[in-house]
This record gives sequence, structure tokens and C-alpha cells, in this order.
Amino acid sequence: MNHTAPSAVPASETGLSEVMLQLGQQARAASALMAKATAAAKNQTLLCLARLLRAQTATLQQANAQDLERAQAAGLSGPMLDRLKLSPQALETVAQGCEQLAAMPDIIGGITGMRQQPSGIQVGQMRVPIGVFGMIYESRPNVTIEAASLSIKSGNACILRGGSEAIASNKALAELVRQALAESSLPADAVQLVPSTDRALVGQLIAMPEFVDLIIPRGGKSLIERISREAKVPVIKHLDGNCHVYVDDPCDLAMALQVVDNAKTQKYSPCNACESLLVAAGVAKEFLPQMAAVFAAKGVEMRCDPLTLEVLKSQPTAPPGAAGQLKVPQLTAATEQDWFEEYLAPIISIKVVAGLEEAIAHINRYGSHHTDAIITSNHQHAQAFLREVDSGSVMVNASTRFADGFEYGLGAEIGISTDKFHARGPVGLEGLTSLKYVVLGQGDIRS
Amino acid sequence: MNHTAPSAVPASETGLSEVMLQLGQQARAASALMAKATAAAKNQTLLCLARLLRAQTATLQQANAQDLERAQAAGLSGPMLDRLKLSPQALETVAQGCEQLAAMPDIIGGITGMRQQPSGIQVGQMRVPIGVFGMIYESRPNVTIEAASLSIKSGNACILRGGSEAIASNKALAELVRQALAESSLPADAVQLVPSTDRALVGQLIAMPEFVDLIIPRGGKSLIERISREAKVPVIKHLDGNCHVYVDDPCDLAMALQVVDNAKTQKYSPCNACESLLVAAGVAKEFLPQMAAVFAAKGVEMRCDPLTLEVLKSQPTAPPGAAGQLKVPQLTAATEQDWFEEYLAPIISIKVVAGLEEAIAHINRYGSHHTDAIITSNHQHAQAFLREVDSGSVMVNASTRFADGFEYGLGAEIGISTDKFHARGPVGLEGLTSLKYVVLGQGDIRS
Repeated sequence: MNHTAPSAVPASETGLSEVMLQLGQQARAASALMAKATAAAKNQTLLCLARLLRAQTATLQQANAQDLERAQAAGLSGPMLDRLKLSPQALETVAQGCEQLAAMPDIIGGITGMRQQPSGIQVGQMRVPIGVFGMIYESRPNVTIEAASLSIKSGNACILRGGSEAIASNKALAELVRQALAESSLPADAVQLVPSTDRALVGQLIAMPEFVDLIIPRGGKSLIERISREAKVPVIKHLDGNCHVYVDDPCDLAMALQVVDNAKTQKYSPCNACESLLVAAGVAKEFLPQMAAVFAAKGVEMRCDPLTLEVLKSQPTAPPGAAGQLKVPQLTAATEQDWFEEYLAPIISIKVVAGLEEAIAHINRYGSHHTDAIITSNHQHAQAFLREVDSGSVMVNASTRFADGFEYGLGAEIGISTDKFHARGPVGLEGLTSLKYVVLGQGDIRS
Repeated sequence: MNHTAPSAVPASETGLSEVMLQLGQQARAASALMAKATAAAKNQTLLCLARLLRAQTATLQQANAQDLERAQAAGLSGPMLDRLKLSPQALETVAQGCEQLAAMPDIIGGITGMRQQPSGIQVGQMRVPIGVFGMIYESRPNVTIEAASLSIKSGNACILRGGSEAIASNKALAELVRQALAESSLPADAVQLVPSTDRALVGQLIAMPEFVDLIIPRGGKSLIERISREAKVPVIKHLDGNCHVYVDDPCDLAMALQVVDNAKTQKYSPCNACESLLVAAGVAKEFLPQMAAVFAAKGVEMRCDPLTLEVLKSQPTAPPGAAGQLKVPQLTAATEQDWFEEYLAPIISIKVVAGLEEAIAHINRYGSHHTDAIITSNHQHAQAFLREVDSGSVMVNASTRFADGFEYGLGAEIGISTDKFHARGPVGLEGLTSLKYVVLGQGDIRS
């Protein structure tokens, strides 16, 4: 595709800085070696990395302390400092993650679907790495190890660009990864960290298709939108999580209460938290007052359509056993914009719908194609919901909070895709690979 | 993802013309119905379309005659007129293609890998359509039926933009598709043709992510490069086919002669024709003069590296049984640019390499990641070539000319991808689909 060989081009002609050109060339060279690395060498690297993370905890914490001091001096908020912190527990968790990945089967090189064709040739597909991916992420330094370990196991090379506030921690972690690769006779350049916090380098990383095949951003929506707009290679996009739970008629209302409560209030900030509740008209009068009582007790603001407001205002007192009395300021009228909103906060939009069909139409129109759930006891409704809701994860009688690579058994998660192309939903090892055709003949020619 | 519902936006605010806005809205609405269409309805449509294509041959040929007259008046060349022509045989071929697709299994809605997770939930993946794709193609009107039938079978909606020279034929064909859809109670808008040849509409088609999920261009490299550069949605790119055959040491030289001859000379214009021949040093002296004699007899120009020239010039006479004597003007020295070149003509570049490793490195550096083959009798060499050559199709002892959706048993081919993301190599029904996660619980909540 490139009519000039990448390695032959001087930096001045590519528009790339010397540092990015070098990272790119080294990554491309390393990716060829990683693609043919044995499962044993890759697993040995991961186990070695786990050992190093434990053995070097003190060194890593020293590096992390520099970042924390700088962040405190810069007046970063408490939650931001928490995310930046590399505690011994956090290091133990990522070390265990490396060991879990090492224990998983290697999917690279596997051939599936090999079949004889009428011409005589045999045709199948081999799973191969994507090549080189670039990852751009904010604050949490443990992402450095998560990304590196997934990259190694999937036979890719990667270029990592972490948040500037975590640069010392990330450099110390990346150094351990290089050491683990070298000790297992794999190329240290298979995992490289952009060594500078110069923002111009991000612009270069996402626009060098000769060296980088895929970009994975992790962070706020504005970061991801900007990267998607400016990238010259495919991007695994994770935009909003405007997740819905639809409480169907008929369903187990006690189950519905429990699942909606969990989906909304177990944590408010994750992308897989519920932001919008749809309730079938047939169960609204019984369900909504109980649900509202739970939300009221937890201080969740409810932005409601007229029918929901009508039900809740006609029954302002919570039923026996519910958590408390509704406070009127928590009940407001939803605007059109509310149905699109990802609050990431103790706020939920609520709408009464006629039934399944309206629920599916509403979700497909206003949702963000992330994760949506139905609570139902009707089999046909469950099947229709699974088939027709156009989202990366579609659930029956389960909390949207399960949408996660670990919960799905992917071993780890490099990101979540709200796109339909290549990968949907949580992206694990398979999302970092591709299938190529392999053809076996015996001197066959086409007539 | 879109914070305003597509159907609510007036054309003036989208930058789209009324016609494209309408096509987009209709396609999006039809795609929801197609995604849940039964296999029976989709197959019935395809069989009905096959019947209509045969029953309406005369009408279709009248429409085609208008295009042919216009093309002749405009002075189009013979090969272009051939490509434009909708003969009864061409119509019979596409009708049979529809019947073959109807006979294939429906992959939509199938759930794979359903497994119980430690939390109690069951997680699997369901195959679903991409949604709406746009297809942009040149001259050959039978592509209208190929694209429409693949779109119907895969449960997508599509917007087709054929070449302006085939507009009358394409309109007549698209009308039959609409009729077949309507007769099977599926939305006629599931297949729409851009009714105008205004080129500005192509620019709009590739830049309306709210209505179109994927663009598939078929045509010359410059068309595809321009579309890839300007598109606001993913594009299945088919750039060059700089395909290699590597003649290994050891191999069956008679097989090598036959396969290389077929790969290069059976047809010169297809993207899967061989453009570059690599020969292991150990077999070069025996193989090259015989191969050169075949090429000489067929008038194929050979652009050679110094070692190849040395071998061929020291043995200017073809061996007994070969087709003729080498004419010196057919032998020229290859430039660096020749190794990158897709000739699509009776020209081949030839290079002697030390062995397997150099061959793989050369292919990965200069090739276009389309299709590459090895001729070998060494098992380890075959395995290494399959694993390490970074191309959409990698072959052992078979002609590169087999790289084709029909030959691979895909039933049909919407295009060929030289990318690594989503789909590599020939793209059939599966490339028009995606996998979403489905989660089944029993009221499970996350702790």
C-alpha cells in the first residue's frame, strides 16, 4: 500500500518528529517478531512481568510518589489523586491480571473453517495480530500494564501514550515491561511509551498509518471525539454509555426493582450504569412508586415523562416497606434532551412506554448503542429484545453493570466499542486480532 | 451517539441535499425491519428477484440499450462497452447468483460461544447486520444485483451509487429489486439507488454517519483513495494487488512453472494476478531459464534484479521443450519502484532471494497485503510463510488467481479488503455483519 518503504523515509519527509518516526519504525519491526512469537515466549514474558511488578513495588511507588507530589502541587482533586495512585494492592491486581492472561489459550495462528472447495483448493482462516496499535489514555497508570499485557498476549506491538500527570509512573512501569520482554527473548520495542508529554506527539501518533494500524483511546468523550475526527487509521471508539433498563409487562417486579437499583446506583460513574428507565404501561402503577421510593432514599433525581409524573404524583407516599417518602424536588419533567443524556450522576430519566415495541424503538433512537437490558418473564419479548436492540451488549434479566471484559470472561479489556465495525462491546484479545485467508493447494491453477 | 434524532433534522441543518436526506432516513428505517426479517422472507425475495430478472430480460435490455447508445456516442472504448453490456447470459448469471444466495444458510441471529460466567450470567455473541452500507461502483450494472442480493441476505439496507454511464440499466435493475422486496413483505427501501449522477451526492453519501454505517467502493485505485480520505464512516478498502509468488528451495519446479504461469498470464488485469516473482537462489539457475522461456513466448516483459539478469543472460537460449528463444528487449533491469508496482499488464518483476526469510521480508515490505503464494515442498517453510506473510490471502502451492469470494465458497463477494481491520481478503456475507454480546441472567446484579 505504501509506495515507499517506511524504514527508508527520513523524518523530514514524513512530517513526523524524529522521536515518533523512531517509535514507529521500531514498533513496526517488533510487530513482525511478535506475530511469530511462540505462545511459550509470550506467556513467559507475562509471568516475568508479574514477578517484576511485585519485586519492584518499592521502585514503582517512588516513581508514583513524584507524580502524586506534582499532582498535589498542581491542586488535582481527591478522586483524580486516587486514580493516579499506584498502591501495592493496585500493583498486585495488575500482576494477577498478567498471570491470568498467561494462563489463557493463545488464539494467534489458529486456523478455523478449513474446507475443500470445488476447485480442489482448501480454504480456511488464520487468526493473526492486527500489527501495531497506539493507545492514548488518561491518569490511571495501571492501564499501562493492562494494555502492555494484552498487546503481548495478542502478538501485537504497541505505542502507549499515558496521561502527562502519570509520566514518571508510566516510565517506570514501561521499563519493567521492556525488561520482561528482553528476558524472554522477545523484542523490547514491542511495548514503547511515548517519552514526552508534548501534545503534538498525540497528533502524530494517530496519523502515521505506515507504522500504526489502530488507535484505542480511553478517556473522556471529548478526547475520543477529537481523536476519531483527526485519526488517519481506524479507532475503537467508546463514546457515551446511555444505557437503558426496560421493565416489561409481564415481569417479576421484585427482580426489576433489584436490577434497576443495581444498574443505577451501585456506582454512578461507570459507562455501563443505567441512565434511563423505561416502564411498560401495564406495570407502571405498581412498579413506579416502589422504584421511586428506592431512588428517593438514595437521593437520585428522577426526570420523568408526563405519564410517570402522573403516576408518581398521584401516589406521593411510598408503599409499605419502601425506603422513604418522595421529596418533590427529586421529581422533575424530562426534556427531549434528557432521553439522550449520559448523566454519570445520581440522576435518571424515566418514561412509561406502551410496551416492547415502543421500548425498542426508544432505545434505538435515543440510546448510545452501548448496553441495554430488559426485565421480562415473556420468552418472545426476551428474544425480540435481544435481536432488535442495536447495541454492543443486550441483556435479559441482568444488570447493565455486567458489561465488562472481565465479567464476560475475556480475561481483560482494552476498551469498549460503541461502534459496529470490527468489534462491538467490551474488546479483549480477539478485538486486537484479525482473520486472514489461508489456501492450501497441490499445484492448483485457475481455469 | 447522535444527540439529535436523525429523522427529526431538516435537510438544511445537515448539509445534505433533500434527496440524500430522504434516502438516508428511508434506509435507516428499512434497516431496522431488515434486521429482524425472517430467513424465509429474505430468501423469498432473492428467488422472486431471480424470476423477475429472467422475466424482464427484454425490458432490462431496452434500458441497457439507452446506456450503450449514449456510451457509443460518447466514444467509450470497446472493453468499457463490454463491461456496460447487460447480455441475457449476464442476467442469467446474476439470477443464478440470487438463487445460490437463497440456498445458503442465514447467519443472522445465530448465537455462538454462550458460556456461564462465574457471576452466574450467561454470555455469548449474536451475529447481526451492520445496518446500512453505501456502495459506490463503476460501469458494470450487474454489480447492482450482486450488491442488492448480498445486502438482502445479510439483513442490511443499502444505498447504491453506480456509474453514470449505466444509470438507465441500474434504475431498471433497482426497480426489480424493489418489486421483489415488496412482494415478499419486506421494505422496498432496503435497496435504494441514488437517482442522480450528480457527483456531489457521492460526497454526501460517504459523510452521513447518522444514516450510513459503512462504505464499500469498487473501482479504480484513485476512486478508492479519494473515498477513503473523505469518508466519515469506515470504508472497506481495496487498494493495489501487488501479489507475489515465491518459488522456494526445495520445490516441485514443474508445479512452480505451471502455477507462476497461471498466476501471471491467465489474465493480466485482475487484482489477484501475480506481479512479482521471487526465486530462491538454490533453484534459480534451473528454474529461471525455463520460466523466462514461458514468459518470452507469451510476450511478458521481465524486470529483473542483477542476479536474475546474470542467470538469464548467461543462458540466453531456452532449454529443450521451452516455448522459444528469449528476446533481449523483454529483459530489463528492475528499479526500486518496480518492486512496489501493480502492473495489471504483461510485465513481471523478478528477484532472486537467499531463501524463505528474505522472501517473507520482501513481500511484507513491498507487497500490498492482498495475496501472496509460496511454491514449496518443505512443510516448515509452508507453515512459516502462512504465519508470517502479512496479507489478506496467503497460499501454499496454489495460484494467486484463486483469491476470490466465489472460489473461497463465500457464495458471493461484495469486495476485497486489503486492510486488517474488520475484514481481510474477499468479503462475503460475514463481512457485512458484526457480533454483539448477549447476556442472559436471572435477576443477576453486580456486587
